[in-house]
Amino acid sequence: MTATAGLAPDTASPPVTPTPEGPGPTLGPSIEDLLTAYRSGERTPTDTVLAVLAAIDERGADGTWITVVERDRLLRRARDMEQHTDPTTLPLYGIPFGVKDSLDVAGLPTTLACPEFAYVPDSTAPAVQRLIDAGAICIGKTNLDQFATGLNGTRTPYPVPRSVYGQGLISGGSSSGSALAVALGQVPFAVATDTAGSGRVPPALNGIVGYKPSRGLLSTVGLVPACRSLDCVTLIAGRVADLTVPFDVMAAVDLDDPYTRERRPDTTPSSDVRVGLPDPDELQFFGDNVMRDAHLTARALLRQVCSTVDAPLAPFTAAGELLYAGPWVAERLTEFRDFVTDHADAIVPVVRDILQGGSRYDALDVFAAQHRLGELKAQVAHLWQQMDVLVLPTIGTTFTVDEVLADPIATNTVLGHYTHFGNLLDLCGVAVPAGLTTDGRPVSLMILGPALADDRILALAAAWSAAIRSTR
Amino acid sequence: MTATAGLAPDTASPPVTPTPEGPGPTLGPSIEDLLTAYRSGERTPTDTVLAVLAAIDERGADGTWITVVERDRLLRRARDMEQHTDPTTLPLYGIPFGVKDSLDVAGLPTTLACPEFAYVPDSTAPAVQRLIDAGAICIGKTNLDQFATGLNGTRTPYPVPRSVYGQGLISGGSSSGSALAVALGQVPFAVATDTAGSGRVPPALNGIVGYKPSRGLLSTVGLVPACRSLDCVTLIAGRVADLTVPFDVMAAVDLDDPYTRERRPDTTPSSDVRVGLPDPDELQFFGDNVMRDAHLTARALLRQVCSTVDAPLAPFTAAGELLYAGPWVAERLTEFRDFVTDHADAIVPVVRDILQGGSRYDALDVFAAQHRLGELKAQVAHLWQQMDVLVLPTIGTTFTVDEVLADPIATNTVLGHYTHFGNLLDLCGVAVPAGLTTDGRPVSLMILGPALADDRILALAAAWSAAIRSTR
Repeated sequence: MTATAGLAPDTASPPVTPTPEGPGPTLGPSIEDLLTAYRSGERTPTDTVLAVLAAIDERGADGTWITVVERDRLLRRARDMEQHTDPTTLPLYGIPFGVKDSLDVAGLPTTLACPEFAYVPDSTAPAVQRLIDAGAICIGKTNLDQFATGLNGTRTPYPVPRSVYGQGLISGGSSSGSALAVALGQVPFAVATDTAGSGRVPPALNGIVGYKPSRGLLSTVGLVPACRSLDCVTLIAGRVADLTVPFDVMAAVDLDDPYTRERRPDTTPSSDVRVGLPDPDELQFFGDNVMRDAHLTARALLRQVCSTVDAPLAPFTAAGELLYAGPWVAERLTEFRDFVTDHADAIVPVVRDILQGGSRYDALDVFAAQHRLGELKAQVAHLWQQMDVLVLPTIGTTFTVDEVLADPIATNTVLGHYTHFGNLLDLCGVAVPAGLTTDGRPVSLMILGPALADDRILALAAAWSAAIRSTR
Repeated sequence: MTATAGLAPDTASPPVTPTPEGPGPTLGPSIEDLLTAYRSGERTPTDTVLAVLAAIDERGADGTWITVVERDRLLRRARDMEQHTDPTTLPLYGIPFGVKDSLDVAGLPTTLACPEFAYVPDSTAPAVQRLIDAGAICIGKTNLDQFATGLNGTRTPYPVPRSVYGQGLISGGSSSGSALAVALGQVPFAVATDTAGSGRVPPALNGIVGYKPSRGLLSTVGLVPACRSLDCVTLIAGRVADLTVPFDVMAAVDLDDPYTRERRPDTTPSSDVRVGLPDPDELQFFGDNVMRDAHLTARALLRQVCSTVDAPLAPFTAAGELLYAGPWVAERLTEFRDFVTDHADAIVPVVRDILQGGSRYDALDVFAAQHRLGELKAQVAHLWQQMDVLVLPTIGTTFTVDEVLADPIATNTVLGHYTHFGNLLDLCGVAVPAGLTTDGRPVSLMILGPALADDRILALAAAWSAAIRSTR
């Protein structure tokens, strides 16, 4: 993608009424479907670009996209590929994708869902550039909770997106638009981020797959940080296979990223993986017994396809509590301190209040919390000796937009109960669909592994997805 | 070693006058010497224990040891080994060693050079226990700058140790006693620690070798922390070979240490190692032109035995400035906050002032400094693409005890100019003797490598030591 001078957000209008309720995700063609069609000559990238733009137009200002690349520019990119590139030579030839609007794409504004903050970068985040170099077509930038601060999707001055399951449910956040672009079938995958669950909660609320790689496998250069020590670039897709192809393209050591590290291959067969499951009494569903029943049903199926072991949950959730009751909010404030001071009115009030809370902590609080986290990391390191992965609910319950707006902090904390600790404890994780509750809401399992167990959790996610498909 | 109930410090008397000036280190028998003598029957561990105790007694209260294990207990340990253990079965059979008094040895008080802080632990630090299990005999606990806070050796209520080079020179710190026990020929090696140079500066001032392994290779469990995120357990010895044998014994993954990691073998021949050397104009000798000349002479010899490349020093020293002008002092204070509040008078005044300075910083200062450090880490990661090790002076100049007491902060900062950044940047390093200045002071080269380049720096240290011996 090249610079698109003067491109303005498509959807700078104020929030609109909810989009029509839906029945769940409507996936579009997979990466493999598209590549097969391109290679047989049945379809061209131009066809795909036109279809994606038509689908976006049809939805209108639904809060999925903040910026869509100009039609002419997308068509030129597609035609260039058709004329100059053999479809068999690039792993992502003509594959459309979206990028969360906290990652730079040259020539498109990076807004963080805060128009007053926006700037137009000259270069593209290396992790995204690798996709483009592999033939993928960036359709545009997707909506998010402002400054990537939130897990619910309502914290945006753009239209508030909604879950594809209707019922007034939130989309989840902060990677709300990335999840919806996939769940609406517009793109097979989207790039997102995850600091405390932002890459896993929205897929859980939209019946799709969200993968937070181990920190350092995908470069965070060109990402406006939320908490630099925790931020990960992530992927959202409709199917596990649509995660692994872009991940293979994106994963690379980037010496400009202080957290960079090499991927570690893991070829343990999924059948040999020891799956840790906590005692159901340790799991929190916040009174949502319908969700509890659905989760335990999914676990019963998991027990049929995997070898499972008991796993204590307490050291994980203790780390999670450190995040939302501790000083890491000051790390967020370091990034935006000047902006918060100079443009307080430009910030969604709940986000502003959270950021300003970072000034409550002193240096001793930070080191004490980091030391406590170290102790919990050591406890968790012992647990990985007895299990290879840990499987939990991705979310313990769901909320409507109205419920979140009525109590934005408490509902957000509930949404992060199972995701807050993942980044602090240096885990990798993938959220995978696990059917529906009896009242029609999405159920999601989260497969967590220690750092660099990425191949292991992706393989298990694929095996799980095959198992649950076979039960339908 | 077993518990020694009620053992009191041998040297609880107030500071004494300087010990006689010396000509430099007087090394005792090496590990290999001792093992050969034991195996041939020429010598027994009892002989060694008696010789070590005699040497310690002869020096009197010189500030080397804070606690020496009771004679009867040491002799019993020696005789037990002689009666029950084949000298060929243990890599450290009958080898005496000292332990810095910030690491726990069961039954001996851990004082941190603060008698009011002292406690008697029930268990031994795992890294030390591995030595004992390998046959080594712990002689006692060695002096240090109080709370391991200092690089000069004067910050102790016990007698202030002096360099074996005389001239009123400081011993260096904080591992002052560990360095002297070796330089005086009492033990072939001692266990020390290094947070900002404490394991390298005292060897540099006493003409011996100090090795700071990559963080996480030696467990820090059982160490009273200085700055937990930076602390390393280290080794001091008279010869490089006397570092590698105990290091091989001690290095092990310890899941109780949140920083634990596995050693990575590196068999690159030293002749293939690219040695980075900064422009001499980037080196600081603080007006000590005699030291500058000696360092440049050593570099000239190094160029004869290695392939060298130019290396910028600025990203390294910028990280060092973060340490002494930044919020990490608050990390020290987190460990001792209650003690500082309740027992302010029990603390050496300069140490107390430093610790109390930690309360100046807020949470944003910490995260901003950690982010800046991340940027510097990324710059340094690029530099390791062009060089395999970096060679610097260990210290740019020397000080007398009187000079340090007259200006304790400024002189300490000068002493750490080349060591402050090593732990922050996750480097490994070894300080090796490099002859004398024309006015009879010790010269030390420091070989630094990226994390896990331990084998590489130790091999180069051995090659360098052989080269400098051949020039004498």
